[in-house]
This record gives sequence, structure tokens and C-alpha cells, in this order.
Amino acid sequence: MKLKFLGTGTSQGVPVIGCTCEVCISDNPKDKRLRSSAMITTDQHKKILIDCGPDFRQQMLVNKEDTVDVALITHEHNDHVIGLDDMRPLIFKTGKNMPLYCYQRVGAEVKKRFPYAFADIRYPGAPAFDLHEIENAPFTVLDTEITPVEVIHYKITAFGYKCKNLAYITDAGFILDAEKEKLRNLDVLILNCIRKFDPHPAHFILPDVIKLFEELQPKKLFLTHISHHLGLHDIEDKQLPSGMHLAYDGLEINF
Amino acid sequence: MKLKFLGTGTSQGVPVIGCTCEVCISDNPKDKRLRSSAMITTDQHKKILIDCGPDFRQQMLVNKEDTVDVALITHEHNDHVIGLDDMRPLIFKTGKNMPLYCYQRVGAEVKKRFPYAFADIRYPGAPAFDLHEIENAPFTVLDTEITPVEVIHYKITAFGYKCKNLAYITDAGFILDAEKEKLRNLDVLILNCIRKFDPHPAHFILPDVIKLFEELQPKKLFLTHISHHLGLHDIEDKQLPSGMHLAYDGLEINF
Repeated sequence: MKLKFLGTGTSQGVPVIGCTCEVCISDNPKDKRLRSSAMITTDQHKKILIDCGPDFRQQMLVNKEDTVDVALITHEHNDHVIGLDDMRPLIFKTGKNMPLYCYQRVGAEVKKRFPYAFADIRYPGAPAFDLHEIENAPFTVLDTEITPVEVIHYKITAFGYKCKNLAYITDAGFILDAEKEKLRNLDVLILNCIRKFDPHPAHFILPDVIKLFEELQPKKLFLTHISHHLGLHDIEDKQLPSGMHLAYDGLEINF
Repeated sequence: MKLKFLGTGTSQGVPVIGCTCEVCISDNPKDKRLRSSAMITTDQHKKILIDCGPDFRQQMLVNKEDTVDVALITHEHNDHVIGLDDMRPLIFKTGKNMPLYCYQRVGAEVKKRFPYAFADIRYPGAPAFDLHEIENAPFTVLDTEITPVEVIHYKITAFGYKCKNLAYITDAGFILDAEKEKLRNLDVLILNCIRKFDPHPAHFILPDVIKLFEELQPKKLFLTHISHHLGLHDIEDKQLPSGMHLAYDGLEINF
């Protein structure tokens, strides 16, 4: 299996519109961060999308992806769901509703923000979704077992997703001990990291992630959901502990 | 004054994800169409945005724009409003709420889809808007008189906007005679045109636009809100009546 980072940026993306900091004006493609999302390709070439933010269309085009078989949604914040309308071409092509896996709460929010997708009589050209409400227990999609990992994101919970020996966690500010047990000794742990200094109420910052790296001991740890306050990719990546890396848009990991 | 097309595509954009038609695989930048939006720059260098769709962030970055002083919204369909969350960096920079001009109905929809922007206690980092409800009567923003032009878009109305001797109309399928009076003998008329053949319930197609061109006699007419069914820019543009052109992303018009 493989996981490709379609986006590794925080909610405003990098560059931030109008910002002239060294990260936002960097020419390095690794400093251009679309909103966080990832695509898992199974051994049977099926596609599992994690989150569908505002850059979904651009991410599909840039990565020459043309299929999503299932989407897993971590939580309802706009940078993780607002691209759902852009799934229309995929839905029209297959003629099937797009399956979305998420909390009941997240599904209810999706219904509120895309009411035309759930209307009894949908207008021609509206998208169509099948909502699968999940709880904090393993489930199977496309012959692949997925284990949710519940994290605390300011005042709400969000799901990370574990698949085989990889876990993808975004928008966490805190992880309860019971959930940490799912994350010990992984081959690959992906964690959100918004910036280097200055604690954030909803997101891990770099010292939090380094502490978790030491505690959970994954073979490799990749940072995602990164803002322009984390620094330039090429400089910062070298300064991380051995085994830790900044992810970047387009990075692929086999697992 | 000038108007720049930030996007000239229909709701799925061009290319359409996964499509292999000749338009969608064209390498010509004029065949790459982000979702329809335009930026007017006044003689005092103020910026009036028309519509804020899913490509807003990308459009601002590509066009090296870093300011919006006022946004005019044509109607509430997602390809015209779903980018409002991406106005956050502009709002943070100025510390002021972003003024949005639109129908009362459209404002109510914006409130439903972005409730966190209108909450009594907004969370840190939420966008903030001032909704200005307009009716079908001229109004002034930034010392510039704007005249709404009401059009019929399937089962709803939408506003086009006229400024000096230019009018920008998107998502029209029909225009009542009384509103047509505002559109006679313009220097520049911009009209939506989704495809060449096959009537559409909500959008003009090419024969409708040619008929309006003959009837309303603008000096120039530009087509926007174009789908991949209209054909390749360089071939189709040559076949249009003299004075009519396909707009393309990045095109600037002085008026």
C-alpha cells in the first residue's frame, strides 16, 4: 500500500495570501502547501481519500488522480470538508454515491453545509453521498481494516486513521493515553504540527511532536498540517531528530 | 478602471477531474478555467471582487493580488461563495470585517454555510463579514456606482453587476425585458455561456449569447462560465462573430 500527501498545509495554506515571509515567498515546491489531505492506494489499486478540503480539485489534477473509492473524514472543519462539492465529476462518472466515513456529528454538519446533496429531490448536477457513521472501533472498507484514533482538537474530537502499521493524525492538540496505545511502535506515524514555537489551543507544535516521537517510538514520523510559521522545509527538515521529517505535497510513503 | 477575469470556468472547472476530452487535456493555458470570478480595480486602486468560489486562494496567488476591499456576490451557489473562508488572511491583515454585497436571501445562505463567521462569540481565527443586503437598485461602493442586473438562473434569481459602461453577468439562463434595458449599447458585456449546443435549464448556451449580442449591440462581448463542452479556445474564438470573444483566466479589460 502507499499513502500520498495531497496537501500538508494548515487551513490558510502556504503561501498565505498577501504574506511576504521567507516561507511564503520561497520558490521551493516543498514550501508550497495545499490544505492537508492524503490518498491511500491499496494493493488492489483502490483509492481511499482522507479529508476533502478546498484544494481537492487542484490536488486531484496535479497528482493525476481520477478516482476516489471511499473518503474518510477526520472532522468537520472547512479545510477538511469544503471540497466535497468538487467530487461531482467522480460521482457522475461512476453513477454511484460517494461513500463518506465519519462521526455522526460530522455527517450532520456535512448535511447542513451541502443540503442540496441530501435533498429528497436533488437538482440535476448535485453531488450524492452515502454517509457511513463510524464510532471509535475498527471498520473495513475495500478489504482494508481501518482503526480510528480519537484525538482532541480544541473543543471537539477528531478521528485519525490507522491502517496496517501506519497512522495518519491531523488537527490534534491532545491525545488521551488510551488512544496513544494504538500508536506505539508504528512503522509510520503522521502527526499535525502547526508551528515551531508558541503553543496553540487546537494543534500540536514542534516540541509536542518531538515528545510524542520519543514516547511512541515510531520508526518514522512525518509532520503535516504545517503553517508558514514552521520555517523553510530544507532548513527545518535537517534539524529534526533522526527519523522525523516534514512531509511535503506529493510525498509518497510505502507501507 | 479595469476588470480581470480570475476564473472563467463553470462549476466543475476545466479540466474536469478525470476527463480526457480534447479541451481537458489541452496544454493551452487559455483552456484552463478556474471557477468564474472577476476583480475590478478602481481608478483609486481599490479592489472589488465579484464572487468568491472554490478557487479564490489560488486565484489571488496566481494573480499576485493581496487585497479585496469589497465583494459582490451574484448568488449563493457553491461555485460562487465557497471560497469565503479563504478570505481570512485578508481579514486578519486589515483587522476589518470583509464587506459582502448580495441579496438578503444570499446573505442568509452564507450565514448557514459559514455559521462560525457569524457566531456571537467567534473562535480565534474565524473570518468576519459585514453583510450588505442589496435590492435591484443602484448602490455605491468605494466611490463607484454599481447597478445590479437581475437575471433568472433556473429557479432562482441572480445579480449581474453593471459598472460604468461594462456589465458582468454570470449564471443567467434568461433575462427579462426590463433588465435588458440596462444592457443596451454597452462598451463591454460579459455573459455566461456554458456550451455550444444542447440547451441548458440554468445557463445560456452559445446561440442564446449570439442572439443577445445582436439584440443588445455591445461594442464587445466576452463569454465566461464556460464548460469543456464549448470547445478549444483558439479554435472557437476565431469562429465567433466579430466583437465576441471567449474570455480566459487572467484576461484584463480596461473600461
